[in-house]
Amino acid sequence: MYYGAIEAGGTKFVCAVSRGGAGIEARTSIPTTTPEETLKHVFAFFDSYTLTSMGIGSFGPIDVNTDSDTYGSITSTPKPGWGFFDFLGEIKDRYNVPTAWTTDVNASAYGEFRAGEAEKSGSCVYLTVGTGIGGGAVVDGKVLEGFGHPEMGHILVRRHPDDKYEGNCPYHADCLEGMAAGPAIEKRHGQTGDRLAADEKVWEIEAYYLAQALVQYTLILRPEVFILGGGVMKQTQLFPLIRQEYKRLLNSYVDTPDPETMITAPALGDDAAVTGCLLLAAEAKA
Amino acid sequence: MYYGAIEAGGTKFVCAVSRGGAGIEARTSIPTTTPEETLKHVFAFFDSYTLTSMGIGSFGPIDVNTDSDTYGSITSTPKPGWGFFDFLGEIKDRYNVPTAWTTDVNASAYGEFRAGEAEKSGSCVYLTVGTGIGGGAVVDGKVLEGFGHPEMGHILVRRHPDDKYEGNCPYHADCLEGMAAGPAIEKRHGQTGDRLAADEKVWEIEAYYLAQALVQYTLILRPEVFILGGGVMKQTQLFPLIRQEYKRLLNSYVDTPDPETMITAPALGDDAAVTGCLLLAAEAKA
Ligand SMILES: Nc1ncnc2c1ncn2[C@@H]1O[C@H](COP(=O)(O)OP(=O)(O)O)[C@@H](O)[C@H]1O
Ligand SMILES: Nc1ncnc2c1ncn2[C@@H]1O[C@H](COP(=O)(O)OP(=O)(O)O)[C@@H](O)[C@H]1O
Ligand SMILES: [Zn+2]
Ligand SMILES: [Zn+2]
Repeated sequence: MYYGAIEAGGTKFVCAVSRGGAGIEARTSIPTTTPEETLKHVFAFFDSYTLTSMGIGSFGPIDVNTDSDTYGSITSTPKPGWGFFDFLGEIKDRYNVPTAWTTDVNASAYGEFRAGEAEKSGSCVYLTVGTGIGGGAVVDGKVLEGFGHPEMGHILVRRHPDDKYEGNCPYHADCLEGMAAGPAIEKRHGQTGDRLAADEKVWEIEAYYLAQALVQYTLILRPEVFILGGGVMKQTQLFPLIRQEYKRLLNSYVDTPDPETMITAPALGDDAAVTGCLLLAAEAKA
Repeated sequence: MYYGAIEAGGTKFVCAVSRGGAGIEARTSIPTTTPEETLKHVFAFFDSYTLTSMGIGSFGPIDVNTDSDTYGSITSTPKPGWGFFDFLGEIKDRYNVPTAWTTDVNASAYGEFRAGEAEKSGSCVYLTVGTGIGGGAVVDGKVLEGFGHPEMGHILVRRHPDDKYEGNCPYHADCLEGMAAGPAIEKRHGQTGDRLAADEKVWEIEAYYLAQALVQYTLILRPEVFILGGGVMKQTQLFPLIRQEYKRLLNSYVDTPDPETMITAPALGDDAAVTGCLLLAAEAKA
């Protein structure tokens, strides 16, 4: 009997199985094309295992509101074919096992909480800084959801005094994602982040926005650990800059764990989400 | 057998008892002076009841971290005599009953969640806008705490384009509290809020800051209800202004309940915190 996990990303799906715990016993990676095509490969992988339950961490926005008619669907995504696709329904129809259903970043937060950087802590926030910015959290042992799932990447930020870039979020222009995700770096500076590695000012501005976000999350959630992943965080020089700016902005107003260890890269690397999905599967009841 | 409740405010303590539920059967109000003097009256009130358990919602900052040496204390308050006062310890020594210990605003959030505006909802945020700004929240049926309690009143805000006031938070200058609490209104406009009731621009600026805060809380927590209390919210013309600005800033990016009913005054009025304390007492285990 196996637990199944699906990390459903906009670029690729990662499917995995385990007989318990966080260890991945088999996995496959599938490019995200149409729902039909993608699920055909997902089913091919899982059909050869007897499943106990499934955990799914999906790109969003998704409907996590159990009272809603579209619970279990991906909602208003611009991705062709996936808008209001009943993802969870398809999985339940095929396997008829208990499932856990949350965002990819909540799954990552849960993976790091149970088996990674936050393993010894009571709470954490996981932030991915890539093509977009998305955040998940674990509070009181559970992934954080309310009327819907968090959209922490779209919080409002104060503009860096030297930053003239107008922002590229179609909803909010200069929200966090609009100012600090990979495409914003590229548009502001005319090159992708990996080619700007040596330009100090780029990372000072980036750290300013990300530190602001961590300050807001701290004052609202008081998490014990911040795990920062995604393509942009491959610029590891960001970590000390973010920690320094975080301390400056918070100005010792509240106690936090030491920012040197509190603000960190994922211990599970790219396996955070799929590990979280396996662990959520193991707890799935319906 | 009675549940006991203490709403410990910086100006006054309200003590109450109930034999169950949210109904207050007896209460007393005590001015906050020294800890010794204040507790003498608190004890005089409760000594005449046989208590099952106690719920305390205190002004802060307080230590809510059960792993900490100073758990149960009020911490770095400037209030004479109360700094690092072991409040919970004194109560436990006297009554030796299970206790619940949280902030006054978390207690208010819990009261409204169980018996007020959020009674039919799964989550809420309670914000008081008075001498300071403080926020509490209920997530997944529990008051929200992490490494410490939230300090939602100190989140960073974007300055209103017409606002030149520098802000008066000693830690962050122009954070939410520094720009929008009662004393900030008074300093910016030269008069207390109650005397500025007819000045439209005052409330437009105030609503701009409070709506920003609700947007940030929404994107991070996705609460179903926002309950706004405190002296400044007696200016009820603020409610429609906040709702309008909230909708403008969020720009339909995430679904929320209808802001007309979602953003509201406390149903329990000034009894929100003490009611929350009674309900927390009923669940206290240790
Ligand atoms: N080494 C790097 N340094 C800076 N930016 C990078 C780096 N690698 C990827 N990025 C940026 O991160 C974004 C892609 O993020 P990634 O997390 O890899 O994928 P996605 O968010 O689409 O899942 C792109 O905008 C890219 O320019
Ligand atoms: N009717 C009112 N209109 C506007 N502001 C008010 C009103 N009543 C009180 N305030 C302001 O609210 C603050 C006091 O807040 P309150 O919630 O009553 O007490 P506290 O926060 O100290 O517990 C003061 O700054 C006062 O100027
Ligand atoms: Zn945005
Ligand atoms: Zn402040």
